[in-house]
Amino acid sequence: MSMMSYPPVMRRLVNELTKLPSIGEKSAVRLAYHLLTSAGEDSLKLADSIREAREVIRLCEVCFALTDAVQCSACLDSTRDSEVLCVVEKPADVIALERCGGFKGRYHVLHGLWSPIRGISPERTTLRALLDRIQGRGPLGEKEQIRELILSTSTTVEGDATALYIAQAAAGSVVRVTRIAQGLPKGGELEYADDMTLNHALKGRRAIGNG
Amino acid sequence: MSMMSYPPVMRRLVNELTKLPSIGEKSAVRLAYHLLTSAGEDSLKLADSIREAREVIRLCEVCFALTDAVQCSACLDSTRDSEVLCVVEKPADVIALERCGGFKGRYHVLHGLWSPIRGISPERTTLRALLDRIQGRGPLGEKEQIRELILSTSTTVEGDATALYIAQAAAGSVVRVTRIAQGLPKGGELEYADDMTLNHALKGRRAIGNG
Repeated sequence: MSMMSYPPVMRRLVNELTKLPSIGEKSAVRLAYHLLTSAGEDSLKLADSIREAREVIRLCEVCFALTDAVQCSACLDSTRDSEVLCVVEKPADVIALERCGGFKGRYHVLHGLWSPIRGISPERTTLRALLDRIQGRGPLGEKEQIRELILSTSTTVEGDATALYIAQAAAGSVVRVTRIAQGLPKGGELEYADDMTLNHALKGRRAIGNG
Repeated sequence: MSMMSYPPVMRRLVNELTKLPSIGEKSAVRLAYHLLTSAGEDSLKLADSIREAREVIRLCEVCFALTDAVQCSACLDSTRDSEVLCVVEKPADVIALERCGGFKGRYHVLHGLWSPIRGISPERTTLRALLDRIQGRGPLGEKEQIRELILSTSTTVEGDATALYIAQAAAGSVVRVTRIAQGLPKGGELEYADDMTLNHALKGRRAIGNG
Protein backbone atom coordinates (compact mmCIF):
# COMPACT_ATOMS: atom_id res chain seq x y z
CA MET A 1 0.00 0.00 0.00
CA SER A 2 2.29 2.78 -1.17
CA MET A 3 -0.54 4.78 -2.74
CA MET A 4 -1.59 7.52 -0.37
CA SER A 5 -5.27 8.32 -0.40
CA TYR A 6 -7.76 10.28 1.64
CA PRO A 7 -8.11 9.41 5.30
CA PRO A 8 -11.50 7.66 5.84
CA VAL A 9 -13.14 10.61 7.66
CA MET A 10 -12.21 12.87 4.75
CA ARG A 11 -13.63 10.27 2.34
CA ARG A 12 -16.89 10.27 4.32
CA LEU A 13 -17.04 14.07 4.25
CA VAL A 14 -16.48 14.06 0.47
CA ASN A 15 -19.26 11.46 0.09
CA GLU A 16 -21.72 13.57 2.06
CA LEU A 17 -20.80 16.69 0.06
CA THR A 18 -21.39 14.94 -3.28
CA LYS A 19 -25.02 14.40 -2.21
CA LEU A 20 -25.56 18.16 -2.50
CA PRO A 21 -27.08 19.43 -5.76
CA SER A 22 -24.55 20.20 -8.53
CA ILE A 23 -21.59 19.23 -6.33
CA GLY A 24 -19.52 16.61 -8.15
CA GLU A 25 -16.55 14.64 -6.86
CA LYS A 26 -14.01 17.35 -7.72
CA SER A 27 -15.99 20.17 -6.13
CA ALA A 28 -16.63 18.01 -3.07
CA VAL A 29 -12.91 17.38 -2.63
CA ARG A 30 -12.19 21.10 -2.95
CA LEU A 31 -14.91 21.94 -0.44
CA ALA A 32 -13.68 19.25 1.95
CA TYR A 33 -10.13 20.62 1.83
CA HIS A 34 -11.46 24.07 2.51
CA LEU A 35 -13.55 22.83 5.43
CA LEU A 36 -10.52 21.04 6.85
CA THR A 37 -7.87 23.70 6.35
CA SER A 38 -9.74 27.00 6.69
CA ALA A 39 -8.76 29.02 9.71
CA GLY A 40 -11.06 29.71 12.61
CA GLU A 41 -14.36 28.17 13.48
CA ASP A 42 -16.06 28.52 10.09
CA SER A 43 -16.39 24.79 9.48
CA LEU A 44 -17.91 24.13 12.86
CA LYS A 45 -20.20 27.13 12.42
CA LEU A 46 -21.41 25.62 9.15
CA ALA A 47 -21.99 22.25 10.81
CA ASP A 48 -23.93 23.96 13.60
CA SER A 49 -25.94 26.08 11.15
CA ILE A 50 -27.05 22.98 9.25
CA ARG A 51 -28.11 21.24 12.45
CA GLU A 52 -29.81 24.35 13.86
CA ALA A 53 -31.64 25.10 10.62
CA ARG A 54 -32.84 21.49 10.37
CA GLU A 55 -34.16 21.75 13.94
CA VAL A 56 -35.85 25.15 13.63
CA ILE A 57 -37.17 25.29 10.08
CA ARG A 58 -40.50 23.64 9.39
CA LEU A 59 -43.22 23.84 6.77
CA CYS A 60 -45.96 26.44 7.20
CA GLU A 61 -49.07 24.50 8.25
CA VAL A 62 -51.20 26.44 5.77
CA CYS A 63 -49.12 26.88 2.60
CA PHE A 64 -46.08 24.59 3.16
CA ALA A 65 -43.51 27.37 2.64
CA LEU A 66 -40.44 27.21 4.90
CA THR A 67 -40.84 29.04 8.19
CA ASP A 68 -39.37 29.14 11.68
CA ALA A 69 -42.86 29.54 13.16
CA VAL A 70 -46.12 27.61 12.90
CA GLN A 71 -47.23 29.71 9.93
CA CYS A 72 -45.14 31.70 7.46
CA SER A 73 -45.20 35.49 7.40
CA ALA A 74 -47.23 35.56 4.15
CA CYS A 75 -50.01 33.48 5.71
CA LEU A 76 -49.93 35.57 8.91
CA ASP A 77 -50.02 38.90 7.05
CA SER A 78 -53.67 40.03 7.17
CA THR A 79 -53.03 42.83 4.64
CA ARG A 80 -52.51 40.25 1.89
CA ASP A 81 -55.35 39.11 -0.33
CA SER A 82 -56.30 35.66 0.94
CA GLU A 83 -58.54 35.03 -2.06
CA VAL A 84 -55.67 35.00 -4.57
CA LEU A 85 -53.57 31.86 -4.32
CA CYS A 86 -50.26 31.44 -6.13
CA VAL A 87 -49.19 27.82 -6.61
CA VAL A 88 -45.43 27.18 -6.83
CA GLU A 89 -43.22 24.13 -6.91
CA LYS A 90 -40.78 24.83 -4.10
CA PRO A 91 -40.03 27.18 -1.19
CA ALA A 92 -37.34 29.04 -3.16
CA ASP A 93 -40.01 30.10 -5.64
CA VAL A 94 -41.88 31.93 -2.86
CA ILE A 95 -38.78 33.95 -2.04
CA ALA A 96 -38.23 34.75 -5.74
CA LEU A 97 -41.83 36.02 -6.10
CA GLU A 98 -41.56 38.01 -2.86
CA ARG A 99 -38.34 39.58 -4.09
CA CYS A 100 -40.01 40.82 -7.28
CA GLY A 101 -42.61 42.48 -5.06
CA GLY A 102 -45.46 42.10 -7.55
CA PHE A 103 -47.63 39.65 -5.65
CA LYS A 104 -49.69 40.39 -2.56
CA GLY A 105 -51.80 37.24 -2.24
CA ARG A 106 -51.12 33.92 -0.54
CA TYR A 107 -49.08 30.91 -1.59
CA HIS A 108 -49.30 27.16 -1.87
CA VAL A 109 -46.04 25.23 -2.17
CA LEU A 110 -46.40 21.87 -3.90
CA HIS A 111 -42.98 20.48 -2.96
CA GLY A 112 -42.67 18.74 -6.28
CA LEU A 113 -44.12 18.53 -9.76
CA TRP A 114 -46.14 15.78 -11.30
CA SER A 115 -43.70 13.68 -13.30
CA PRO A 116 -44.88 10.34 -14.69
CA ILE A 117 -41.43 9.82 -16.24
CA ARG A 118 -39.65 10.19 -12.90
CA GLY A 119 -42.41 8.31 -11.13
CA ILE A 120 -43.60 11.29 -9.11
CA SER A 121 -47.38 11.15 -8.74
CA PRO A 122 -49.46 14.15 -7.62
CA GLU A 123 -49.93 12.37 -4.28
CA ARG A 124 -46.24 12.79 -3.45
CA THR A 125 -46.74 16.55 -3.43
CA THR A 126 -49.04 18.74 -1.30
CA LEU A 127 -51.63 18.57 -4.09
CA ARG A 128 -54.26 16.94 -1.84
CA ALA A 129 -54.11 19.93 0.54
CA LEU A 130 -54.27 22.30 -2.45
CA LEU A 131 -57.38 20.58 -3.81
CA ASP A 132 -58.96 20.93 -0.35
CA ARG A 133 -58.12 24.64 -0.30
CA ILE A 134 -59.56 25.02 -3.81
CA GLN A 135 -62.76 23.39 -2.60
CA GLY A 136 -62.97 25.80 0.31
CA ARG A 137 -61.50 23.65 3.08
CA GLY A 138 -58.43 25.25 4.62
CA PRO A 139 -55.78 22.98 6.18
CA LEU A 140 -56.86 24.04 9.68
CA GLY A 141 -60.50 23.29 8.97
CA GLU A 142 -61.26 26.96 8.31
CA LYS A 143 -63.31 28.04 5.32
CA GLU A 144 -61.24 29.33 2.37
CA GLN A 145 -62.57 31.19 -0.61
CA ILE A 146 -60.32 31.45 -3.63
CA ARG A 147 -61.13 33.99 -6.30
CA GLU A 148 -58.06 33.40 -8.44
CA LEU A 149 -55.60 30.54 -8.64
CA ILE A 150 -52.30 31.57 -10.28
CA LEU A 151 -50.42 28.49 -11.47
CA SER A 152 -46.75 29.53 -11.24
CA THR A 153 -44.99 26.25 -11.75
CA SER A 154 -41.98 26.30 -14.08
CA THR A 155 -42.55 26.46 -17.83
CA THR A 156 -41.10 22.97 -18.25
CA VAL A 157 -42.89 19.82 -19.41
CA GLU A 158 -43.44 18.79 -15.80
CA GLY A 159 -44.41 22.30 -14.70
CA ASP A 160 -46.92 22.56 -17.54
CA ALA A 161 -48.36 19.09 -16.86
CA THR A 162 -48.79 19.87 -13.17
CA ALA A 163 -50.42 23.23 -13.97
CA LEU A 164 -52.82 21.53 -16.39
CA TYR A 165 -53.67 18.84 -13.85
CA ILE A 166 -54.46 21.47 -11.19
CA ALA A 167 -56.39 23.66 -13.66
CA GLN A 168 -58.65 20.70 -14.51
CA ALA A 169 -59.15 19.84 -10.85
CA ALA A 170 -59.97 23.47 -10.01
CA ALA A 171 -62.46 23.98 -12.85
CA GLY A 172 -65.84 24.78 -11.36
CA SER A 173 -64.51 25.53 -7.86
CA VAL A 174 -62.43 28.62 -8.59
CA VAL A 175 -63.68 31.69 -10.46
CA ARG A 176 -60.45 32.25 -12.31
CA VAL A 177 -57.49 29.96 -12.98
CA THR A 178 -54.44 31.58 -14.61
CA ARG A 179 -51.01 30.47 -15.72
CA ILE A 180 -47.94 32.68 -15.20
CA ALA A 181 -46.98 34.30 -18.54
CA GLN A 182 -44.30 32.99 -20.87
CA GLY A 183 -42.34 35.24 -23.19
CA LEU A 184 -38.97 36.83 -23.78
CA PRO A 185 -37.00 37.44 -20.59
CA LYS A 186 -36.22 41.11 -19.80
CA GLY A 187 -33.28 42.08 -21.99
CA GLY A 188 -33.83 39.01 -24.11
CA GLU A 189 -32.93 39.33 -27.79
CA LEU A 190 -35.27 37.86 -30.39
CA GLU A 191 -32.33 36.57 -32.37
CA TYR A 192 -31.24 34.26 -29.57
CA ALA A 193 -34.65 33.18 -28.27
CA ASP A 194 -35.62 29.55 -28.82
CA ASP A 195 -38.68 28.76 -30.94
CA MET A 196 -40.90 27.72 -28.04
CA THR A 197 -40.22 30.98 -26.21
CA LEU A 198 -40.82 33.01 -29.36
CA ASN A 199 -44.09 31.22 -30.05
CA HIS A 200 -45.25 31.85 -26.49
CA ALA A 201 -44.14 35.47 -26.73
CA LEU A 202 -46.16 35.91 -29.92
CA LYS A 203 -49.26 34.17 -28.60
CA GLY A 204 -49.12 36.19 -25.39
CA ARG A 205 -48.83 39.54 -27.16
CA ARG A 206 -50.73 42.47 -25.65
CA ALA A 207 -52.06 45.72 -27.03
CA ILE A 208 -49.95 48.79 -26.23
CA GLY A 209 -50.57 52.48 -26.94
CA ASN A 210 -53.62 52.73 -29.18
CA GLY A 211 -53.09 49.21 -30.52
CA MET B 1 -43.35 44.22 6.80
CA SER B 2 -45.27 42.48 4.06
CA MET B 3 -42.13 41.28 2.30
CA MET B 4 -41.47 37.68 3.23
CA SER B 5 -37.82 36.78 3.53
CA TYR B 6 -35.70 33.92 4.81
CA PRO B 7 -36.11 32.92 8.43
CA PRO B 8 -32.97 34.00 10.40
CA VAL B 9 -31.59 30.46 10.85
CA MET B 10 -31.83 29.92 7.10
CA ARG B 11 -30.10 33.27 6.54
CA ARG B 12 -27.28 32.16 8.87
CA LEU B 13 -26.95 28.86 7.01
CA VAL B 14 -26.76 30.70 3.68
CA ASN B 15 -24.10 33.01 5.13
CA GLU B 16 -21.98 30.10 6.28
CA LEU B 17 -22.34 28.38 2.90
CA THR B 18 -21.19 31.47 0.99
CA LYS B 19 -17.86 31.25 2.86
CA LEU B 20 -17.10 28.07 0.91
CA PRO B 21 -14.92 28.44 -2.19
CA SER B 22 -16.83 29.21 -5.43
CA ILE B 23 -20.21 29.15 -3.65
CA GLY B 24 -22.00 32.43 -4.36
CA GLU B 25 -25.26 33.69 -2.86
CA LYS B 26 -27.44 31.85 -5.39
CA SER B 27 -25.68 28.51 -4.99
CA ALA B 28 -25.75 28.92 -1.21
CA VAL B 29 -29.52 29.45 -1.25
CA ARG B 30 -29.98 26.39 -3.44
CA LEU B 31 -27.75 24.31 -1.17
CA ALA B 32 -29.55 25.59 1.93
CA TYR B 33 -32.95 24.64 0.49
CA HIS B 34 -31.61 21.22 -0.32
CA LEU B 35 -30.20 20.80 3.18
CA LEU B 36 -33.54 21.86 4.67
CA THR B 37 -35.91 19.92 2.46
CA SER B 38 -33.99 16.75 1.54
CA ALA B 39 -35.43 13.59 2.98
CA GLY B 40 -33.71 11.48 5.58
CA GLU B 41 -30.71 12.23 7.67
CA ASP B 42 -28.37 13.44 4.93
CA SER B 43 -28.10 16.99 6.24
CA LEU B 44 -27.30 15.88 9.76
CA LYS B 45 -24.82 13.34 8.38
CA LEU B 46 -23.08 16.17 6.53
CA ALA B 47 -23.00 18.30 9.68
CA ASP B 48 -21.55 15.37 11.63
CA SER B 49 -19.01 14.59 8.90
CA ILE B 50 -17.72 18.16 8.97
CA ARG B 51 -17.39 18.09 12.75
CA GLU B 52 -15.83 14.62 12.80
CA ALA B 53 -13.36 15.43 10.03
CA ARG B 54 -12.34 18.66 11.78
CA GLU B 55 -11.72 16.67 14.95
CA VAL B 56 -9.81 13.78 13.41
CA ILE B 57 -7.83 15.28 10.54
CA ARG B 58 -4.55 16.95 11.39
CA LEU B 59 -1.36 17.93 9.59
CA CYS B 60 1.40 15.34 9.28
CA GLU B 61 4.11 16.42 11.71
CA VAL B 62 6.80 15.85 9.09
CA CYS B 63 5.41 17.04 5.75
CA PHE B 64 2.18 18.89 6.71
CA ALA B 65 -0.07 16.80 4.44
CA LEU B 66 -3.50 15.96 5.85
CA THR B 67 -3.64 12.77 7.87
CA ASP B 68 -5.75 11.06 10.52
CA ALA B 69 -2.60 9.88 12.29
CA VAL B 70 0.53 11.59 13.62
CA GLN B 71 2.32 11.12 10.31
CA CYS B 72 0.87 10.64 6.84
CA SER B 73 1.17 7.33 4.99
CA ALA B 74 3.79 8.75 2.58
CA CYS B 75 6.09 9.72 5.47
CA LEU B 76 5.54 6.36 7.20
CA ASP B 77 6.20 4.32 4.04
CA SER B 78 9.80 3.13 4.32
CA THR B 79 9.83 1.93 0.70
CA ARG B 80 9.68 5.51 -0.54
CA ASP B 81 12.83 7.48 -1.33
CA SER B 82 13.31 9.86 1.60
CA GLU B 83 16.02 11.77 -0.25
CA VAL B 84 13.70 13.09 -2.95
CA LEU B 85 11.41 15.81 -1.66
CA CYS B 86 8.49 17.15 -3.66
CA VAL B 87 7.30 20.61 -2.59
CA VAL B 88 3.63 21.42 -3.20
CA GLU B 89 1.30 24.21 -2.27
CA LYS B 90 -1.60 22.34 -0.67
CA PRO B 91 -2.74 18.91 0.55
CA ALA B 92 -4.89 18.32 -2.55
CA ASP B 93 -1.72 18.48 -4.66
CA VAL B 94 -0.32 15.48 -2.77
CA ILE B 95 -3.39 13.43 -3.64
CA ALA B 96 -3.16 14.51 -7.30
CA LEU B 97 0.50 13.43 -7.50
CA GLU B 98 -0.26 10.15 -5.72
CA ARG B 99 -3.07 9.49 -8.16
CA CYS B 100 -0.74 9.85 -11.16
CA GLY B 101 1.47 7.24 -9.50
CA GLY B 102 4.72 8.64 -10.90
CA PHE B 103 6.33 9.81 -7.68
CA LYS B 104 7.79 7.63 -4.97
CA GLY B 105 9.61 10.16 -2.80
CA ARG B 106 8.40 12.28 0.11
CA TYR B 107 6.42 15.51 0.25
CA HIS B 108 6.47 18.92 1.83
CA VAL B 109 3.19 20.88 1.84
CA LEU B 110 3.69 24.64 2.01
CA HIS B 111 0.06 25.54 2.79
CA GLY B 112 0.30 28.67 0.71
CA LEU B 113 2.38 30.46 -1.88
CA TRP B 114 4.47 33.53 -1.48
CA SER B 115 2.35 36.43 -2.69
CA PRO B 116 3.58 39.99 -2.08
CA ILE B 117 0.46 41.31 -3.84
CA ARG B 118 -1.91 39.48 -1.52
CA GLY B 119 0.35 40.18 1.45
CA ILE B 120 1.31 36.55 2.01
CA SER B 121 4.91 36.33 3.16
CA PRO B 122 6.90 33.08 3.12
CA GLU B 123 6.60 33.04 6.90
CA ARG B 124 2.86 32.42 6.67
CA THR B 125 3.57 29.08 5.01
CA THR B 126 5.55 26.06 6.27
CA LEU B 127 8.62 27.44 4.46
CA ARG B 128 10.65 27.69 7.69
CA ALA B 129 10.24 23.95 8.28
CA LEU B 130 11.12 23.28 4.63
CA LEU B 131 14.32 25.32 4.90
CA ASP B 132 15.23 23.32 8.01
CA ARG B 133 14.63 20.06 6.12
CA ILE B 134 16.73 21.35 3.22
CA GLN B 135 19.52 22.07 5.66
CA GLY B 136 19.31 18.57 7.06
CA ARG B 137 17.21 19.21 10.16
CA GLY B 138 14.00 17.17 10.10
CA PRO B 139 10.96 18.50 11.99
CA LEU B 140 11.41 15.88 14.70
CA GLY B 141 15.08 16.74 15.19
CA GLU B 142 16.18 13.82 13.03
CA LYS B 143 18.81 14.22 10.34
CA GLU B 144 17.46 14.56 6.81
CA GLN B 145 19.46 14.29 3.65
CA ILE B 146 17.87 15.59 0.48
CA ARG B 147 19.31 14.60 -2.87
CA GLU B 148 16.70 16.26 -5.03
CA LEU B 149 14.17 18.96 -4.34
CA ILE B 150 11.31 18.96 -6.89
CA LEU B 151 9.51 22.29 -6.82
CA SER B 152 5.94 21.40 -7.84
CA THR B 153 4.08 24.60 -7.06
CA SER B 154 1.60 25.77 -9.71
CA THR B 155 2.89 27.40 -12.86
CA THR B 156 1.33 30.71 -11.87
CA VAL B 157 3.11 33.96 -11.01
CA GLU B 158 2.89 33.14 -7.32
CA GLY B 159 3.84 29.50 -7.84
CA ASP B 160 6.86 30.52 -9.90
CA ALA B 161 7.92 33.20 -7.38
CA THR B 162 7.68 30.73 -4.51
CA ALA B 163 9.66 28.12 -6.45
CA LEU B 164 12.36 30.68 -7.25
CA TYR B 165 12.52 31.77 -3.62
CA ILE B 166 12.95 28.18 -2.44
CA ALA B 167 15.45 27.37 -5.20
CA GLN B 168 17.63 30.26 -4.09
CA ALA B 169 17.37 29.27 -0.45
CA ALA B 170 18.24 25.66 -1.30
CA ALA B 171 21.25 26.47 -3.47
CA GLY B 172 24.33 24.93 -1.91
CA SER B 173 22.39 22.67 0.48
CA VAL B 174 20.70 20.37 -2.02
CA VAL B 175 22.48 18.52 -4.83
CA ARG B 176 19.70 19.03 -7.34
CA VAL B 177 16.81 21.47 -7.42
CA THR B 178 14.24 20.93 -10.18
CA ARG B 179 11.00 22.55 -11.28
CA ILE B 180 8.05 20.48 -12.48
CA ALA B 181 7.85 20.70 -16.31
CA GLN B 182 5.59 23.05 -18.22
CA GLY B 183 4.24 22.23 -21.67
CA LEU B 184 1.19 21.24 -23.58
CA PRO B 185 -1.33 19.24 -21.55
CA LYS B 186 -2.01 15.68 -22.72
CA GLY B 187 -4.42 15.96 -25.64
CA GLY B 188 -3.66 19.67 -25.92
CA GLU B 189 -3.80 21.16 -29.40
CA LEU B 190 -1.10 23.59 -30.48
CA GLU B 191 -3.66 25.79 -32.15
CA TYR B 192 -5.42 26.53 -28.89
CA ALA B 193 -2.42 26.73 -26.56
CA ASP B 194 -1.58 30.15 -25.14
CA ASP B 195 1.78 31.74 -25.98
CA MET B 196 3.33 31.19 -22.55
CA THR B 197 2.51 27.50 -22.65
CA LEU B 198 3.83 27.16 -26.21
CA ASN B 199 7.06 28.95 -25.31
CA HIS B 200 7.56 26.67 -22.32
CA ALA B 201 6.73 23.63 -24.42
CA LEU B 202 9.35 24.68 -26.99
CA LYS B 203 12.03 25.48 -24.43
CA GLY B 204 11.40 22.19 -22.64
CA ARG B 205 11.67 20.08 -25.80
CA ARG B 206 13.39 16.71 -25.49
CA ALA B 207 15.15 14.45 -27.95
CA ILE B 208 13.12 11.46 -29.10
CA GLY B 209 14.08 8.55 -31.33
CA ASN B 210 17.52 9.30 -32.79
CA GLY B 211 16.96 13.06 -32.44
